[in-house]
Amino acid sequence: MERIKCTVSYDGTNFAGYQVQPDKRTVQSVIEGVLKKMHKAETRISASGRTDAFVHGKGQVFHFDTPLHITGEQWKKALNTQLPADIYIVEVEKVSGDFHARFDVQKKEYRYRISTKKDRDVFKRNYLYHYPYELDIEKMKEASSCFIGTHDFTLFCSARSDVENKVRTIYDIHIEKQEEEIEISFVGNGFLYNMVRILVGVILEAGQGRVHSEEIKAVLERQHKRLGTKTAPGQGLYLWKVYY
Amino acid sequence: MERIKCTVSYDGTNFAGYQVQPDKRTVQSVIEGVLKKMHKAETRISASGRTDAFVHGKGQVFHFDTPLHITGEQWKKALNTQLPADIYIVEVEKVSGDFHARFDVQKKEYRYRISTKKDRDVFKRNYLYHYPYELDIEKMKEASSCFIGTHDFTLFCSARSDVENKVRTIYDIHIEKQEEEIEISFVGNGFLYNMVRILVGVILEAGQGRVHSEEIKAVLERQHKRLGTKTAPGQGLYLWKVYY
Repeated sequence: MERIKCTVSYDGTNFAGYQVQPDKRTVQSVIEGVLKKMHKAETRISASGRTDAFVHGKGQVFHFDTPLHITGEQWKKALNTQLPADIYIVEVEKVSGDFHARFDVQKKEYRYRISTKKDRDVFKRNYLYHYPYELDIEKMKEASSCFIGTHDFTLFCSARSDVENKVRTIYDIHIEKQEEEIEISFVGNGFLYNMVRILVGVILEAGQGRVHSEEIKAVLERQHKRLGTKTAPGQGLYLWKVYY
Repeated sequence: MERIKCTVSYDGTNFAGYQVQPDKRTVQSVIEGVLKKMHKAETRISASGRTDAFVHGKGQVFHFDTPLHITGEQWKKALNTQLPADIYIVEVEKVSGDFHARFDVQKKEYRYRISTKKDRDVFKRNYLYHYPYELDIEKMKEASSCFIGTHDFTLFCSARSDVENKVRTIYDIHIEKQEEEIEISFVGNGFLYNMVRILVGVILEAGQGRVHSEEIKAVLERQHKRLGTKTAPGQGLYLWKVYY
């Protein structure tokens, strides 16, 4: 058996998320369907983590084991020929049998894209969050700096998150504005369920002057209950890169 | 009655083209559906022309007549609130009763987008033509210059085109390359069915050195039958602007 590591991009628009769900079109089930055809047997893949409905993968990573002996380039070609237009294998590498796409993650980078244009852009509706309000970038940067470091993110993830340890380290949050588009990138050792989208919601409110750093710090230190901010929608979010 | 002129953008991906067809989702039928609700009566719209399935509208224009008296800004807001995410009214103007979105067209601009990247881009699959081959831009410019001017385009439009007069004037064809994306813009007094997509097919073949200017000129002068080039697919095409 050989272990194969794949970097994959997908447009999340027409998927009910990454993970297999009965009777739903998911990224995992489509890829496993192609592998099943190639192996004439069930072949499970393990990814670095899930992504939600509408969320995009730019550099998602998964691995699988195979008895087939073909080169990385041949794998890439064979998979891409059979995959639909909204999934594309960017890179294939052979790795040692102890590599694990989920357990070996060192860092992950997510990016979130926002348009503040007054008018909707029909061509970008699935690829960014249309938020036609004035934002103060300095205030957004100030708010985001509160999250950098090691914190208990219990009050900044979905209440449905079932992981026990909710302490995570964010190494960097970078905000870049180009004309009327804003991209916020988050690099951390791991992210909880809905965490990036909740942080984006807080940063956007801060950019409108409705949430202040002291409040954010108080919630992080659990001296205050959840902020009443919205979770930013899935279509603006990209799992950008996974570091091993 | 007031005559209203609207400039509309639409993402052609999920439409069976612009024009009403029984049991199909088309741009016209969706807009007329919204107008019907507002007027509580059938309201027909007249556009500058049709676009095919998957073809996008960046600045399509249509007009309609209405007994309602509200301002242009109110029209824009009312329509956009009810239209789905893949149609957006960019501008609304009140015009005189003798304006006609189709008969008064002076010039039209179409743009066609191509990616020559080796790898597919899942996020652009519906917005450009993935053509991963080497193209000589100078040869493409040379070929496109053959089409500029007034010509009989009978052999450069769909055989199903039912217009009698197939003489059209192309004022300009402009080719721009940015990294691995190419945009070709066409400005003319009118375009026949599939004409832009057929011209793009010829220009791409020329860029690969497989079609030469002399052949193109011979076909334009009807001294030669159709070139065997492919019609470029709809998703790379944008009806960019209509001039009155």
